[in-house]
Amino acid sequence: MNNFQFYSPTEFVFGKESEKLAGHYVKKHGGTNVLLHYGGGSAIRSGLLGRVKESLTAEGIAFTELGGVQPNPRDTLVYEGIKLCREKGIDFILAVGGGSVIDSSKAIAMGVPYDGDFWDFYSGANRPKAALSVATVLTIAAAGSEGSGDSVITKEDGGLKRGAGSDLIRPRFSIMNPELTCTLPPYQTACGATDIMAHVFERYFTNTTEVEITDRLCEAVLLTMVKETPRVIADPANYDARANIMWAGTVAHTNIVGVGREQDWNSHGIEHELSALYDCAHGAGLAVIMPAWMEHVYPHNVLRFAQAAVRIWGCQMDIENPENTAKEGIVRFRQFLRSIGMPLTFAELGAKPEDIPALVEKFGIGDGRTGGFVKLSAEDITKIYEIAVDPQLI
Amino acid sequence: MNNFQFYSPTEFVFGKESEKLAGHYVKKHGGTNVLLHYGGGSAIRSGLLGRVKESLTAEGIAFTELGGVQPNPRDTLVYEGIKLCREKGIDFILAVGGGSVIDSSKAIAMGVPYDGDFWDFYSGANRPKAALSVATVLTIAAAGSEGSGDSVITKEDGGLKRGAGSDLIRPRFSIMNPELTCTLPPYQTACGATDIMAHVFERYFTNTTEVEITDRLCEAVLLTMVKETPRVIADPANYDARANIMWAGTVAHTNIVGVGREQDWNSHGIEHELSALYDCAHGAGLAVIMPAWMEHVYPHNVLRFAQAAVRIWGCQMDIENPENTAKEGIVRFRQFLRSIGMPLTFAELGAKPEDIPALVEKFGIGDGRTGGFVKLSAEDITKIYEIAVDPQLI
Repeated sequence: MNNFQFYSPTEFVFGKESEKLAGHYVKKHGGTNVLLHYGGGSAIRSGLLGRVKESLTAEGIAFTELGGVQPNPRDTLVYEGIKLCREKGIDFILAVGGGSVIDSSKAIAMGVPYDGDFWDFYSGANRPKAALSVATVLTIAAAGSEGSGDSVITKEDGGLKRGAGSDLIRPRFSIMNPELTCTLPPYQTACGATDIMAHVFERYFTNTTEVEITDRLCEAVLLTMVKETPRVIADPANYDARANIMWAGTVAHTNIVGVGREQDWNSHGIEHELSALYDCAHGAGLAVIMPAWMEHVYPHNVLRFAQAAVRIWGCQMDIENPENTAKEGIVRFRQFLRSIGMPLTFAELGAKPEDIPALVEKFGIGDGRTGGFVKLSAEDITKIYEIAVDPQLI
Repeated sequence: MNNFQFYSPTEFVFGKESEKLAGHYVKKHGGTNVLLHYGGGSAIRSGLLGRVKESLTAEGIAFTELGGVQPNPRDTLVYEGIKLCREKGIDFILAVGGGSVIDSSKAIAMGVPYDGDFWDFYSGANRPKAALSVATVLTIAAAGSEGSGDSVITKEDGGLKRGAGSDLIRPRFSIMNPELTCTLPPYQTACGATDIMAHVFERYFTNTTEVEITDRLCEAVLLTMVKETPRVIADPANYDARANIMWAGTVAHTNIVGVGREQDWNSHGIEHELSALYDCAHGAGLAVIMPAWMEHVYPHNVLRFAQAAVRIWGCQMDIENPENTAKEGIVRFRQFLRSIGMPLTFAELGAKPEDIPALVEKFGIGDGRTGGFVKLSAEDITKIYEIAVDPQLI
């Protein structure tokens, strides 16, 4: 096991009607002048935003609104938010929405007290030294941004999609009411579930040995997702299944299932180029890319893939030929994704094989972004995209 | 799933030589004038206390020492610590030791800013509204106090052992170097492992349904303990096994494996009377009491006990007679405890059957302390002690 630091100071407030406590928790965590950041009209139409505003007003907390966050959130709105916060003397950002809204809020939070361009934190040119407080009212189980110190933003000019991370942007609190997710359509639900599972797999495939506790915690989240996801696809209003998935999504990404080991994250990087180019859902892109990545890299550690197959998918271990078990696990993962309505190929995603050279170029192999389980060359990344065009283990 | 709040703001600093960072983290978390609280001579003899003091001095942090914490920590030293902290203007308590030292530190931390008797928080007469900051340098994997908001203190006059809980006493940081536990004798190691497993079982047996994620996280910790504990008993200096157990002990008790559900905690209450009367190790008492509790209550929910047997102990499910599987799980738990050198009976613990009426009396059945999985009467508690005298499922 490697040395590690683990810090997850977010106060999670989970359950029915919890959004009514937004004002109470903003006050508890020191907010006095709030930027209420959100996306499109659904938070307004559902009445959620109204309930949050009532709750703030009841506590005497001032707020300014900034809506319009898009999926794959853009730098342009971040710049607008930074300017607005400075003008209004904002000290606290409350994100009402999913991962895109939260990530946009985190970017604004880092940008406000920073003299330079906030993109420096995403390009790797600088690290943040301060940030406004961020908190969330979560509306979709997917990104895990409600409990993480991470944020991903897309640069509109050129479509570069990059991440930044710091404990400074871990939310002060996150309000999580699973009822809010009961109206999500099956496709978005499945995209979210895929993202959650991918967050765990990125941590599960590691070269660090002897981290049984982290392995088992990874498997705990994955086993939960394998049980609960088909239930919400079949019965979207199932509160308990929604609740299990929502909390699993948070546990998947606070990093408690990743400590003490080297992690991978290449599937995320390879997928980001797809959603940046085609503006597809991140979860759908992961359903295409992550099994393709597995198909390409499993020979690097057949026994680890076999362990996943046995412990997560319930496969029988082929003791004489562990490779059969490893491959069976990948097939089972794809079958599961298919069963919840996810795409598995480039064609199903609307991606074009002829774009592969451009995708690989943009990934920027020279940027040192491919450490982890297997260090990938440009040829490896090309091969993974090609597998996604025509998968074999299916 | 029930509504819940989960808040674990402790910064965990885990790994080799991490104690050298004590000064850095005290400073980071705002401490300027520290009470260094510890137990007997082992922290001094091993050189640990010296390294921590060097680290504080290097950061220019003043400190006052208070040693002498005993296992099953006493109120008398807490009063002494409160007086000392007030005299010296202490603003930060650094516990160097195990659960007893940490629990004593937490009691002092709550007592200093409180006008009344700190025991009010343990008797249930009052709730704390403020506390000094507490942090830890952990030396044994067991109590989980390094990541919890709980503390247990024994009143020397009368031997009353009671707990208090508040988010205010969650440690600001906990430094966890598994190397420090490599010299622990097998008996203490096994006592610690038993305590860790008990913390999970207290949360696992619940009447709340549909909390798959929490079930699976519980099982993750238990599966880790079942694998790693025999390894450290056989090879005490095995760093990786020690590291897995140390982190499992923290995960077991931050409450991340307990959220969203009613919990039990009767085995802890019933055991506390034993360790208060006989001054035995808490973990050894739990090895005797918890399986006895299971033997008494399993008919309340046979399928839940069968699930534990299948998922934790790898038993085959007897589909026609789940009770057989439930009972097999309890037998397997006792076999495991025996294999790591734990006592299973009153006699092995040095407890006396003729004391049972006094133990039941002192438990204080009228205090409303027996909610949870099965609400126990005085007769139930008597029966559990009697089973511990002469277990059947063994």
